[in-house]
Amino acid sequence: MQSFSLRAAIHISAIFGVYMSLAMLIPAFVDLYYGNRDWRVFALSAFFTGGLSMAVALATQGRPPGVSSRFAFLLVNLLWLTTAATGTIPFLASSLNMSLSDAVFESVSAITTTGATAIVGLDALPPGMLLWRSLLQWMGGLGVIALGLFILPFLNVGGVSYFKIESTDIEDRPFARLSTFTISMVAIYGLLTLACGIAYAAAGMDGFDAINHAMTTIATAGFSTHDDSFGHFSDRPAILWIAIVFMCIGALPFSILILLAVRGRIDALRDPQVRAFLGYTLAFCAVTTIYLRIETDAPFFDALTHATFNFVSLITTTGFSTHDYSSWGPFAVALAFIATFPGGCSGSTTGGIKAYRFIILFELMANGLRRLVYPSSVQPVRYGDRPVDDDMQRAVVLFIASFFVLWAIATLLMAATGLDLVTSLTGALTALTNVGPGLGDFIGPKGSFAAIPDLAKWVMALAMLFGRLEILAVLVIFSPVFWRR
Amino acid sequence: MQSFSLRAAIHISAIFGVYMSLAMLIPAFVDLYYGNRDWRVFALSAFFTGGLSMAVALATQGRPPGVSSRFAFLLVNLLWLTTAATGTIPFLASSLNMSLSDAVFESVSAITTTGATAIVGLDALPPGMLLWRSLLQWMGGLGVIALGLFILPFLNVGGVSYFKIESTDIEDRPFARLSTFTISMVAIYGLLTLACGIAYAAAGMDGFDAINHAMTTIATAGFSTHDDSFGHFSDRPAILWIAIVFMCIGALPFSILILLAVRGRIDALRDPQVRAFLGYTLAFCAVTTIYLRIETDAPFFDALTHATFNFVSLITTTGFSTHDYSSWGPFAVALAFIATFPGGCSGSTTGGIKAYRFIILFELMANGLRRLVYPSSVQPVRYGDRPVDDDMQRAVVLFIASFFVLWAIATLLMAATGLDLVTSLTGALTALTNVGPGLGDFIGPKGSFAAIPDLAKWVMALAMLFGRLEILAVLVIFSPVFWRR
Repeated sequence: MQSFSLRAAIHISAIFGVYMSLAMLIPAFVDLYYGNRDWRVFALSAFFTGGLSMAVALATQGRPPGVSSRFAFLLVNLLWLTTAATGTIPFLASSLNMSLSDAVFESVSAITTTGATAIVGLDALPPGMLLWRSLLQWMGGLGVIALGLFILPFLNVGGVSYFKIESTDIEDRPFARLSTFTISMVAIYGLLTLACGIAYAAAGMDGFDAINHAMTTIATAGFSTHDDSFGHFSDRPAILWIAIVFMCIGALPFSILILLAVRGRIDALRDPQVRAFLGYTLAFCAVTTIYLRIETDAPFFDALTHATFNFVSLITTTGFSTHDYSSWGPFAVALAFIATFPGGCSGSTTGGIKAYRFIILFELMANGLRRLVYPSSVQPVRYGDRPVDDDMQRAVVLFIASFFVLWAIATLLMAATGLDLVTSLTGALTALTNVGPGLGDFIGPKGSFAAIPDLAKWVMALAMLFGRLEILAVLVIFSPVFWRR
Repeated sequence: MQSFSLRAAIHISAIFGVYMSLAMLIPAFVDLYYGNRDWRVFALSAFFTGGLSMAVALATQGRPPGVSSRFAFLLVNLLWLTTAATGTIPFLASSLNMSLSDAVFESVSAITTTGATAIVGLDALPPGMLLWRSLLQWMGGLGVIALGLFILPFLNVGGVSYFKIESTDIEDRPFARLSTFTISMVAIYGLLTLACGIAYAAAGMDGFDAINHAMTTIATAGFSTHDDSFGHFSDRPAILWIAIVFMCIGALPFSILILLAVRGRIDALRDPQVRAFLGYTLAFCAVTTIYLRIETDAPFFDALTHATFNFVSLITTTGFSTHDYSSWGPFAVALAFIATFPGGCSGSTTGGIKAYRFIILFELMANGLRRLVYPSSVQPVRYGDRPVDDDMQRAVVLFIASFFVLWAIATLLMAATGLDLVTSLTGALTALTNVGPGLGDFIGPKGSFAAIPDLAKWVMALAMLFGRLEILAVLVIFSPVFWRR
């Protein structure tokens, strides 16, 4: 790693910090509008962040770096760290008296679109602070989409841009120049947020709640403006179903949304990972609905609504909840635990293992079993009707293996802080998959992360960052080979 | 699958059933010796099993099958099912009033060397019945070693006979003819059992206990003659340390024990999986000892003894316990959970994922990370100083993926019977890895499997069989391609 690459990466991150300081002005204006004195928190934070970022940017000016995998990995990590660090500042400066651990946890949970919160008393928070949390998630979501569309696939880390629907359908045509693609991305993301917000408002949310929840729904992120999350809206099933629809949209590959919106290509929905995602989501919701009907005396529509809402929320790694589903009985708890793993589609804002990795893994398994019976059989691993190259197979195995190794390490570290097995296991898991709620007495759907030890919060924040950058993009930074000249 | 292959496999299994009926005469004589009327249970069981087996053997006589992978897979599965079924008969015929579920659970747990028991009140059991349980485990252990040395590696399923220390050191030389190898195996297994039994007796166990525990120690199996397992011998640390030594010996590859014993090749211990196994076992024991010293006021030697005994017991998948280590605090619980995964060396009686798979997996991961940084780097995956071929890499990935999929399915099924998350997760896990004890209120080290629902016992029994046959040997039977003509 040449030193000027590191300098250049810091330079770009610092410029990004300036943009973050500008974003802080939005909650400042909102607090001003509501006549809340907390606008000063954001103005001060913006001033501090902007000044510091500009100083760093000026100090690190110089010739542009050569484009290399290493530079890209370094930049991606630094950008997320910068966002996390700058996101923390308003929390620290606020009147909430948050500790450094809590502020970092909240900021990282926001920008990674995890949605686990260390704040109790959301309903009483200044509007600017609530908006800042939602805005961080919304920007985090956009960042993740950009990462998944433009960067990670070309680093062989994740994403099926690999399989390039875009390459045949968009990139080869003039329409698909990078700038057009970027503009489509931002426009569609913005319009979806707007549509979600309008739908929420039409179904009875007040304007401020609608804006906040729209931002955190479309980013499959999970922060709410209420301590009881969507339990606050349980008496309005329409709101819950709107959330279900938009969480599912948020879990689709963004490249497919672009194809749909810009070119009316409905056939793009026939993508294997879309079918796999919808398939397992339906299965979880159906089984849970049936279980709820058998175990409780809830009417069918209630059971359907709440089972679907909470499991779509888990699988899309959003993390909203309407109920303490851990009180639905042991089978529902086990289902919720398993539902924390899969995630949505690559190129979406969801976390977790993701549908395309399961498709490739099951293809690998079927192939392996076939070869045990017929040792000389040779069949390519396929994704839909396309063969999967060796690099992709290797990356899938590497990701999943790293996932379980990191989960084990994070669980041990959480347990070392004194947390029980279920809290440690599910806390580490929900952080690594960017879902949000865990299970057990503390961090369940109706619990909070406020009460867990500071060290556990740091472990979780780190796990969230790993998960958000598809694990491997962070893991390479820790490998000795990365730093060799 | 040709029908005459199926017939031939049944024929061989039936002959095996005849041997099982002869084995039942041993506890019959023991009960006779102790003047216990239960000798009739075994005599009757032997008569019934022998008769039925001979009838089936006669009915399925015919021309020998061609040797094929499919025939081998089929035979291995049928042999284990036959052992499980015949092992069940004395439990059903006994005066213990065991239900079918309990009897099957006990028998499968025995022959898979798992060691989870559904019987409460071991101390009051007739000696013949106690011996039958130990004998099943001892024979199961011998079967597993034979399987790991002679069959599975050649089906590409498991074992590093692949890497054939034997091929260069034994098989190429006249000494290593199959019969000599088999005789060495049985002789060494028998002599180790004898040595262990004598050591136990010298350290103060009574003769009957020494024989039983020697058989279940060397098979890393875990049945005891006392409800409180090795807690019964807690006041005699020498006994615990003897158990530690022999559990560790039982976890070594049997091919290496043969090399050591027959040819004095101490250098065989430099095998990568031996080093890996000893390395992680030492790490777990050291960390737990330190944790115990910090958390409790136990004297150093007590902490060392009990931490080492219980973690060696878990890692070697034996399943003896001296203490309820789940009361040692949350970190010890998390460590015990993680220690349920790794297992010992291939070609031993241990279960779990096994050391060589970790070595290959970590090599794959290191290679993958290197390729992310240098996309054009090509480095072979190595095991020690030998390259690992594609089939082996594929089998390792297939095994680990199948392991986690089966674990998830078994957990959901356990939870569906109403068991809580920790019991479901650890019950499914401990069955799949053939360890024995789980965690939580019911099935922890001081608990019992007597209280869990019958359906959960069947799920666990199935998981034990999967785990014992290295998962893949059973999984192929369930794949459609296996039954295609």
